[in-house]
Amino acid sequence: MEREKLLNAIKPRMPEKRYVHTIGVMETAIGLAQRYGEDSKKAEIAAILHDVAKYANEEWMRDIVRTHSLGSDLIAWGTEILHGPVGAWVAQTEFQVEDEAILNAIRFHTTGRANMTKLEEILFIADMIEPNRKFPGVDALREIAQQDLKLAMRACIQHSVAHLIKMELAIYPRSIECYNYYISMEQKPSLQ
Amino acid sequence: MEREKLLNAIKPRMPEKRYVHTIGVMETAIGLAQRYGEDSKKAEIAAILHDVAKYANEEWMRDIVRTHSLGSDLIAWGTEILHGPVGAWVAQTEFQVEDEAILNAIRFHTTGRANMTKLEEILFIADMIEPNRKFPGVDALREIAQQDLKLAMRACIQHSVAHLIKMELAIYPRSIECYNYYISMEQKPSLQ
Repeated sequence: MEREKLLNAIKPRMPEKRYVHTIGVMETAIGLAQRYGEDSKKAEIAAILHDVAKYANEEWMRDIVRTHSLGSDLIAWGTEILHGPVGAWVAQTEFQVEDEAILNAIRFHTTGRANMTKLEEILFIADMIEPNRKFPGVDALREIAQQDLKLAMRACIQHSVAHLIKMELAIYPRSIECYNYYISMEQKPSLQ
Repeated sequence: MEREKLLNAIKPRMPEKRYVHTIGVMETAIGLAQRYGEDSKKAEIAAILHDVAKYANEEWMRDIVRTHSLGSDLIAWGTEILHGPVGAWVAQTEFQVEDEAILNAIRFHTTGRANMTKLEEILFIADMIEPNRKFPGVDALREIAQQDLKLAMRACIQHSVAHLIKMELAIYPRSIECYNYYISMEQKPSLQ
C-alpha cells in the first residue's frame, strides 16, 4: 500500500500527537534501514502501523487475543503490552500485511524479545529515539544508533527496563529475555 | 542444631567477610522474625545457612543441579543464582534441615519469587539490610523494614533489579516475577 494511503488510514485512530510520533518513527526507521542495509519499504510499513491498535478499546483487544489465540499470557496485561500483538493482527487482517517480518516488528515493538531481526531492532529503536521523543538520555541513544544497531538495541532495552522499574511499573517477561540477551553480547556500547 | 555448632560448620566454607555478613543476616533476621511474629529459630537457621554454598565450585553446583533435578533453567546461570537452590540442597542433605519453609527461604534468598512466605521475605530483606551492608539507599530500606514487611520486600526487590540493570547484569526471570508481584500490591511504601 502507498505511504499516503496508509497514513490516511491510521490518522483517525489516534490523537494528533501520536500521529506526529508515528511520522517521526517512520522517518527514523527508514533512515536506520538505509544505514544498516534493511528493506526501507518494510521499515516504512512497520513504522506507520506500529501503533495502529494503541487507542483501541482494551477489552476489545483482550477479545482479539482470546479469539485469535495471540497468547494466553497477554490477557493479564494492559494496553501498553496488548497493542503490539493486536496491532500486528490488525495490520494483517485489515491492512493485508502478509510479510511475517513486518508483522513481527509490529508485534514486538514494545516488549522486544531475545535475538531480534534487524527490522525488529530498527522499529524498536526508532520508536524510542524519533525526533519528538524527549527524555534524559535520548541523545546518547540517538548517537549509538548511528554507530551500531545491536549496541543501540542493547542500550534501548536497558534504558527501557530501567525506566519501568524507576516508575514502579510491571515488566513483561519477554522484555527481560530481551534485556538478558542483549547485555550478554560481548561488545559493550562505547558511549553512555 | 545449636547455633554455635551451625556457625562453626559454615565458618570454614567462606571468607571472613562473608561470615561476618552471615552473623549480621542472622541477627537481623531474628529481629524481623520477633517483630513480625515469625519463628525466630527458623529465621536463625535459614540465615546461618543461606550462603553455605556461595563459595562452592561452580561446576560442582551445576552437577548437583543436574543430578538432583533442582531446575534445568538454572544450568545457564552462575554462582550468584546457583548458590540459593544448591544451598538449600546442602542444608537438607548435609545439615539435616527438613523444614520446607527454611529450605525455601534459603532457596529463594537471592532471586525472590512471587508471593513469598513471611520467612522468605525476612531472609531476603535481612540479607540486604544487615548492618554490614553499605550502599546508597540501604538506610531507607532499613527504615521501611521496621514498619511493614511487605513494603520492605517491595522496596528491596525494586532496589535489587534496578541495581542489576544499572550494572548491566542478567536478571533471573523469577526475580521479575517477584518484582511484578510486589509492585502490584495496592499499598505503596510511604518512605523512599
